[in-house]
Amino acid sequence: MNNFTNKLYIATEHDDTYKQLIQNQALPDLEICSSPKEAQIVLASPPLVTSILDDFSQLDWLQSTYAGINALTDPNLRKDYTLTNVKGIFGPAIAEYVLGYSIHHYRHFQTYHQQQKERLWQPHLYTSLTGKVMVILGTGTIGSHLAHAASALGIHTIGINRTGIPSKSLSFKDTFHINEIKAALEQADIVVNTLPATPDTQYLLNEQTLGFCRNCLLFNVGRGSSLDNKALLLALKNRWVDHAFLDVFEQEPLSADHPFWGITKITITPHIAALSEPRQVVNIFAKNYQLWRDGFQLNNLIDFDKGY
Amino acid sequence: MNNFTNKLYIATEHDDTYKQLIQNQALPDLEICSSPKEAQIVLASPPLVTSILDDFSQLDWLQSTYAGINALTDPNLRKDYTLTNVKGIFGPAIAEYVLGYSIHHYRHFQTYHQQQKERLWQPHLYTSLTGKVMVILGTGTIGSHLAHAASALGIHTIGINRTGIPSKSLSFKDTFHINEIKAALEQADIVVNTLPATPDTQYLLNEQTLGFCRNCLLFNVGRGSSLDNKALLLALKNRWVDHAFLDVFEQEPLSADHPFWGITKITITPHIAALSEPRQVVNIFAKNYQLWRDGFQLNNLIDFDKGY
Repeated sequence: MNNFTNKLYIATEHDDTYKQLIQNQALPDLEICSSPKEAQIVLASPPLVTSILDDFSQLDWLQSTYAGINALTDPNLRKDYTLTNVKGIFGPAIAEYVLGYSIHHYRHFQTYHQQQKERLWQPHLYTSLTGKVMVILGTGTIGSHLAHAASALGIHTIGINRTGIPSKSLSFKDTFHINEIKAALEQADIVVNTLPATPDTQYLLNEQTLGFCRNCLLFNVGRGSSLDNKALLLALKNRWVDHAFLDVFEQEPLSADHPFWGITKITITPHIAALSEPRQVVNIFAKNYQLWRDGFQLNNLIDFDKGY
Repeated sequence: MNNFTNKLYIATEHDDTYKQLIQNQALPDLEICSSPKEAQIVLASPPLVTSILDDFSQLDWLQSTYAGINALTDPNLRKDYTLTNVKGIFGPAIAEYVLGYSIHHYRHFQTYHQQQKERLWQPHLYTSLTGKVMVILGTGTIGSHLAHAASALGIHTIGINRTGIPSKSLSFKDTFHINEIKAALEQADIVVNTLPATPDTQYLLNEQTLGFCRNCLLFNVGRGSSLDNKALLLALKNRWVDHAFLDVFEQEPLSADHPFWGITKITITPHIAALSEPRQVVNIFAKNYQLWRDGFQLNNLIDFDKGY
């Protein structure tokens, strides 16, 4: 497509990391530039690029470092360029987060950390994850990947979706219809919400549904709006939920005066269950760059009209 | 075998837990007794039962709650009863320990715990476990189970054994001969020792072998004698090892004045990577009880002459 050098502008939260990783790739005819006016290609986090989007007078292709590109589909923004996002790299990250914190909880890692400070040798009984029941809300790519990894630890997985039809990946041991959520949650040791924000999922985890749980671990790695915060406090009080691991919130960042920070039965992480890992983003970018340079259609194309 | 009630004596570190679990099983014609003289059956931790072994005048069968039954094969102790141990329940526990702490490390769980105390919302980049190389010393049941679970998280597993021949389970991506340990350790992100204590494994992890590593995580879940403690300190200083997770030690419990307690790059746990979990022990006991009652051969029989 080009015989000259292509110029790439980077606008992310980790520019130095991305620059280094892209230089390591030694992509042909590609040069990183520091002036938006020179760039045909942009690698950017959507929220960081919207305000300067009009400065890219030669913009041909923007590779988002996020899956979520809502910031760029705003009706007031230009749409005269090719937009691609990142996909398929979040399943493993979510599986690590959920399984890591589940093991951390059931195997008393925090207690042993404290005991080490006290130079105290004191074993504690545990129950292994083998045979526990994990209910996963959402049977898409992320839920399926989690179910597969959980199964390798001997966990019995139940997926919940809107059809009750098993996902193509066959990762779940059982699949329940959303109308059967009571039957699923009643037997759950671990409940994981992976659902996106839609009207259907708004406060899906509320006083009624959390009331079906018995002493479970609750993970929210989907969207903050799926969880009714007041219902969670009641669920912790009534031991419907033994411990909640929250990575997403209705307002992010969570304000410093939010009561959740101080509750020992809530673990708060700053929306990192599945970050766009630069190494993986750059692999996606590098493949797309080769396609772009050779004039082929790019992977993970966004349709501005559909918004995904 | 019996038309009368069979009497069981329990001598473990967690008698109340075992009593409750055995009562939950509602095994036919079985009653828990508190007098050694009445018991035909004993469920016991070997170190706790040796001193009272002669008190069991009707002893027919002893189910050990440990895998290790060395305390009971001492030449000075009686051997006029059937001895069984527990097997096959440690692989999942070891896999949880190694994968849990690996995720804990790479995904910054300790940092987020600290940040929560400070009400600080600050994401940190991470590298996922996908694509990392795990070298496992020992390709037996435990190593194979770990390799299988690690693979589900996208980890590339290399087993090391004395033959270089892949284990029957085919859980490992590659299998190296112990003579090729340098080639394996040079590419390792995570090194896990699962080997038992034998003359061959004494200080296998020493200044020379640890010197092959580059910034790896090191797990010792085998035996304390496999690791040269002085070499570990050098390895941490030289960044051959980034962090060590030690569950076993030459002297247990680790004395309160041992320098390892205070080193932040060493995580110490009190030999809990694979405890005999009462729930699982009782399942093994219950199956064996049915066999014993019906006069069949028991599972996990110990041959006193061989010692295993």
